[in-house]
Amino acid sequence: MDELQILRQKNLETIFHPESIAIIGTNRVKGTVPHDILDNILKADFNGIVYPVSPREKSIKGLKAYKYVIDVPDEIDLAILVFPSSVCHLALEQCGKKGIKSVIIISAGFKEVGEAGLKREKQLIEIARKYDMSLIGPNCLGVINTAPETNINASFAREMPEKGNIGFLSQSGALCTAVLDYARAKHIGFSKFISFGNKADISEIDLLYYLMNDDETKVILVYLEEIVDGVALMKAAREVLEKSGKPILVIKSGRTEEGASAAASHTGSLTGKDEICDAAFEQAGIIRCDNIEEMFNKAIAFTYQPVPVSEKVAIITNAGGPGVLTTDAAISRGLKLAKFSDETTAILKKALPATANINNPVDVIGDAKSDRYLVAIEAAFRDPDVAGVFVILTPQSMTDIDAIATDITRIAKNQTKPIYASFMGEKDVASGIDILQQHRIPHYSLPESMCMAFQAVYLFHTNLKLKAHRIPVLKNIQQEVARKLMDNYSSNGREFISEVESIELLQTYGMPVPQGKLARSAEEAVTTAEEIGYPVVLKVVSDEIIHKTEVKGVELNVGSAQEVRNAFERIRSNAKSIMPGATITGAYVTPMISGGEEVILGIKRDPLFGPVLMFGLGGIFVEIFKDISFGIAPLSYDEAMHMIENTRAFEILRGSRGHSPRDIASIVDALLRLGQLALDFPEIEELDINPLFVLNEGEGCVVGDARIIVKLS
Amino acid sequence: MDELQILRQKNLETIFHPESIAIIGTNRVKGTVPHDILDNILKADFNGIVYPVSPREKSIKGLKAYKYVIDVPDEIDLAILVFPSSVCHLALEQCGKKGIKSVIIISAGFKEVGEAGLKREKQLIEIARKYDMSLIGPNCLGVINTAPETNINASFAREMPEKGNIGFLSQSGALCTAVLDYARAKHIGFSKFISFGNKADISEIDLLYYLMNDDETKVILVYLEEIVDGVALMKAAREVLEKSGKPILVIKSGRTEEGASAAASHTGSLTGKDEICDAAFEQAGIIRCDNIEEMFNKAIAFTYQPVPVSEKVAIITNAGGPGVLTTDAAISRGLKLAKFSDETTAILKKALPATANINNPVDVIGDAKSDRYLVAIEAAFRDPDVAGVFVILTPQSMTDIDAIATDITRIAKNQTKPIYASFMGEKDVASGIDILQQHRIPHYSLPESMCMAFQAVYLFHTNLKLKAHRIPVLKNIQQEVARKLMDNYSSNGREFISEVESIELLQTYGMPVPQGKLARSAEEAVTTAEEIGYPVVLKVVSDEIIHKTEVKGVELNVGSAQEVRNAFERIRSNAKSIMPGATITGAYVTPMISGGEEVILGIKRDPLFGPVLMFGLGGIFVEIFKDISFGIAPLSYDEAMHMIENTRAFEILRGSRGHSPRDIASIVDALLRLGQLALDFPEIEELDINPLFVLNEGEGCVVGDARIIVKLS
Repeated sequence: MDELQILRQKNLETIFHPESIAIIGTNRVKGTVPHDILDNILKADFNGIVYPVSPREKSIKGLKAYKYVIDVPDEIDLAILVFPSSVCHLALEQCGKKGIKSVIIISAGFKEVGEAGLKREKQLIEIARKYDMSLIGPNCLGVINTAPETNINASFAREMPEKGNIGFLSQSGALCTAVLDYARAKHIGFSKFISFGNKADISEIDLLYYLMNDDETKVILVYLEEIVDGVALMKAAREVLEKSGKPILVIKSGRTEEGASAAASHTGSLTGKDEICDAAFEQAGIIRCDNIEEMFNKAIAFTYQPVPVSEKVAIITNAGGPGVLTTDAAISRGLKLAKFSDETTAILKKALPATANINNPVDVIGDAKSDRYLVAIEAAFRDPDVAGVFVILTPQSMTDIDAIATDITRIAKNQTKPIYASFMGEKDVASGIDILQQHRIPHYSLPESMCMAFQAVYLFHTNLKLKAHRIPVLKNIQQEVARKLMDNYSSNGREFISEVESIELLQTYGMPVPQGKLARSAEEAVTTAEEIGYPVVLKVVSDEIIHKTEVKGVELNVGSAQEVRNAFERIRSNAKSIMPGATITGAYVTPMISGGEEVILGIKRDPLFGPVLMFGLGGIFVEIFKDISFGIAPLSYDEAMHMIENTRAFEILRGSRGHSPRDIASIVDALLRLGQLALDFPEIEELDINPLFVLNEGEGCVVGDARIIVKLS
Repeated sequence: MDELQILRQKNLETIFHPESIAIIGTNRVKGTVPHDILDNILKADFNGIVYPVSPREKSIKGLKAYKYVIDVPDEIDLAILVFPSSVCHLALEQCGKKGIKSVIIISAGFKEVGEAGLKREKQLIEIARKYDMSLIGPNCLGVINTAPETNINASFAREMPEKGNIGFLSQSGALCTAVLDYARAKHIGFSKFISFGNKADISEIDLLYYLMNDDETKVILVYLEEIVDGVALMKAAREVLEKSGKPILVIKSGRTEEGASAAASHTGSLTGKDEICDAAFEQAGIIRCDNIEEMFNKAIAFTYQPVPVSEKVAIITNAGGPGVLTTDAAISRGLKLAKFSDETTAILKKALPATANINNPVDVIGDAKSDRYLVAIEAAFRDPDVAGVFVILTPQSMTDIDAIATDITRIAKNQTKPIYASFMGEKDVASGIDILQQHRIPHYSLPESMCMAFQAVYLFHTNLKLKAHRIPVLKNIQQEVARKLMDNYSSNGREFISEVESIELLQTYGMPVPQGKLARSAEEAVTTAEEIGYPVVLKVVSDEIIHKTEVKGVELNVGSAQEVRNAFERIRSNAKSIMPGATITGAYVTPMISGGEEVILGIKRDPLFGPVLMFGLGGIFVEIFKDISFGIAPLSYDEAMHMIENTRAFEILRGSRGHSPRDIASIVDALLRLGQLALDFPEIEELDINPLFVLNEGEGCVVGDARIIVKLS
């Protein structure tokens, strides 16, 4: 953490636990933001002193009002600014002079409105730096802390949410109102609720670090519209995971190009490729969600119930159809149906009517009342193969919905296994659902959502056990030699580095390059071919020729000295006739490799996450099937392995279905080395190894062709 | 339609519009099914006469009760049976004698409880046949008709639903209660609501035909657990579509193997492959849904609003974030953002504040009241590029939610473009959502659901225009010759038909087979090779050898007479040494085809849908990428084409990305011919053409290898 970050952590402490607050720019007009903020703080029973600051009023809501913040006779921990944007800087300057370190700027009219606003925003930052202040906002809804010792609702939300274990961070203020309304209806409580708006100073990254250490928070939810520093975000997420084990769920909008451009016009931000964002989140252990509902569906599963030890569930239903639908949903989400022990089956057989289904999914039959549900749920909980229980209910005329709900909340107590419920319908089941929600039993209107939530919790904890971002130390890396080569290549201002040079560079990073040589004449080509042994490959070498096959500049499987001569001349004359302007340096002579599986490795530079590695199977697999995976450097061994496993290509490489197993370990090693190269040479904008020949297990791999594009600054 | 089907249609008319009903087995015990059914009929204000039939009571609920149905002095149109299953047949026999033609059997305890129940069910059918009766059930919730001239709630549902245009059919009674509860909360109305239970007599197919002609029904929803006759279901769905244009939405549970086996234990039904069910539904124009929510989300879009003329929408929001999320959802669903005209932009610019976003998605900004929404929605409706309007709302403190909802319902009147809404949150927005739902404005809590529903309506109507299931008449089909061949092959009880014979058979159906011959000696092989020209392929021929490569029985690219001799001997000795027991007939000599794209065609027999055709790209594409598509025979030209387009292989075949365009029309022709073959020869259990070489556009295709498995009865 740098000094600024440490300062922010300190000031965040004051934002969440102030003993005194000044509300600067408040007024007496009900229904306006300046008034409602003061009103909300008073209504929430804040445990400290509130000072209204208003240029016009002498008192507001029974409190003495001060003209300027500087006039307040006591010390102030936190200032909330609700002035028009044009005068915010004046008030902030005063805050600085008054020694206030923590400021929430609610006011809009900054970066989000364009150039003039951005200028005003920068001005605020300058003032903040001068006085060691930290800012939340501008252009935000404010901050809520439900901790009873503080009880602060420094926002213009309609109502204070319930207390709970969810920390919620949002870049969009407007979305917060929908979230609070949604949560209130479902009794979902929050520990901290922060709308951070334009994140001019304090960002989601500072807040992640803060919530990592916040005992009240068990799960962190983030709504993001722009990522400013992807690398820092990944670092913070990893640290939260390692140190606290708290799951981080993020909605990042702008998945599609159109969405991203709508977001950009809204936040003025850069956007990278969404697949890369997916890859980065996965590496950092962030659970990406598509919408508010999905996020909360998962969040309640994380905070309300124990962690399942396996993916095996018991389904208990009073209707066959929904039981089948839930089974479908479970299997589709990678869950399994638990296999009941003889004991469980015996209990169910004894307690349930003959027409009931005593296997999993258990059907207690339409006329079931709470007694049958109770027996079935208890039996399922006791069964050793069951890791979690799903209760499905349809409202038959005799179903005692509330009693069943109450029983569930009672049985769930002191269980080490989770229980989720889905009461299908809406009106008749509403009171039952309310009972469940009040008692922290996750309820889902759809079986799909239930299974998705269970899967998220299970996978998170399984991965957590495996996760440790250890970056391996690589041997045979000659960084200084590589630096000299690179400086040399780009000394003449070239942005394209050809095959021969690229391979030379790759060799310095311990990559498996072919034993080849540049031949400037046909006779040199023959000499090289004799050295490395037939058959060989000849490829045209020219600074101007990027696509060698397009100039018919590649000859494969060349088997004798005479063939080498012919091939050399053919290549030269083809290239000359198709690209008359190109200077032909000669031909690159390498061994002909056959029998290898062809894959593609690459480096790309992402504007948000920096050096991105790419892996895929060659040819039409990448083109047609988009069978590619991404990873952000530096990679751990597991992450590199995961990149390969994440493609369908993996099935081929590991040797299923009649294919011989390939040397996957050597691809992992190559990916790790490429990652190091990408980090060490930020000027590499793009690097393609296409193909990399992967030989049989234990035999390694060989670079078939390579090219690099550098960006000269 | 056969006679029985015609009878059922006639009797269904009485089921939905009876003038007199007998409720057989009813009683005075509130909260039991026999009582509640009578109670529901009376409560719903049925426009006819009700006769309770009860062995014990003299009167029930003020109505005179009869001991036996035969005792009722008047004519009875409809009987509802709620007796225990053991005595139902006695009551049904009496109904027959009384001349009642339409019977709903609510009672459970039949097929669904196993052998004894199935026997009872068969007994019911026999009685029904004897008296020309039609039955709904047994084991069902009953039937509801909201038409005011009838007003019948012959079910034990908790409450009568609202009147509307949705016809709902369900195999699961229990699910119906959840559906009714869900619908009631959202003001979703029904025209007919039918729980058909075990479908011993009347099935979803009869009901589809009935609802096709029912003026009150605009969209048909079906929940199915088992398909008994897939071909009849497809036929009915096609007819509904062609004659009435009514969309059919179906949930078919048992998508996964586990789900299917849970369904099978529940219904005792056969199940086919789920992918084939998907293909069949698509061909028949059925919209398959995964759950109740998805089904109703789409159903209200179909019934409440006009059909969009294009996929271009306008999004109007008071919050940037949700606007971006909706844009993402729209694009992901194949929708587009409409491009506003200058006029629209000018109107928005004038009416909205400077900080608003006047491009699509339009952001009317958090403090917007109904006036701004009104301007934006009206402008969007008028814009020629906009085919539909999505209104997004988040509950800010100043948002006049109900006023905005009311405005939407008002503007939507007399529009030819659809408008959908998503009011995000839950509690604060509830009254606004209720206003929308009462006035038939489709409301979705998630932007994803909104876009999915819009897409479903748009695609349905686009496809409807294209759809016409015309089965082409194929030339060069020698069915009689093929029949003789087939009888000859299978005369000795063989189930496996080898390559040479399969190709012979395929030729009689006009399939593009290679010019090849069976050679019984090396010299015969040379003669054939000389006839067809080098290079050739030699493949072992033996009735016992199914996998030729496994015995090293294939030699490719054989270039001369001497090579042919060597290849013949090699094949023979390889096969002999690897499968010593096999009788080697000789070698099949065919031209060596190179440069073609290899695809796979096949026939499979599905237990539900019959002859299924398969298409995919060869080799690892099928194995690893599962790039296969299915189609049910007979195929129309468009359907065969669609099978190819439905695979990723299509991109390769049509010649994108450096591949030369292939003769796709010849694959279509081959698929159509295979479909005909599959229909004409029901004994073909499996047929594989692997590979089919597809040559360049205009050059056709050639069968590379083929084998057939027949099922001898």
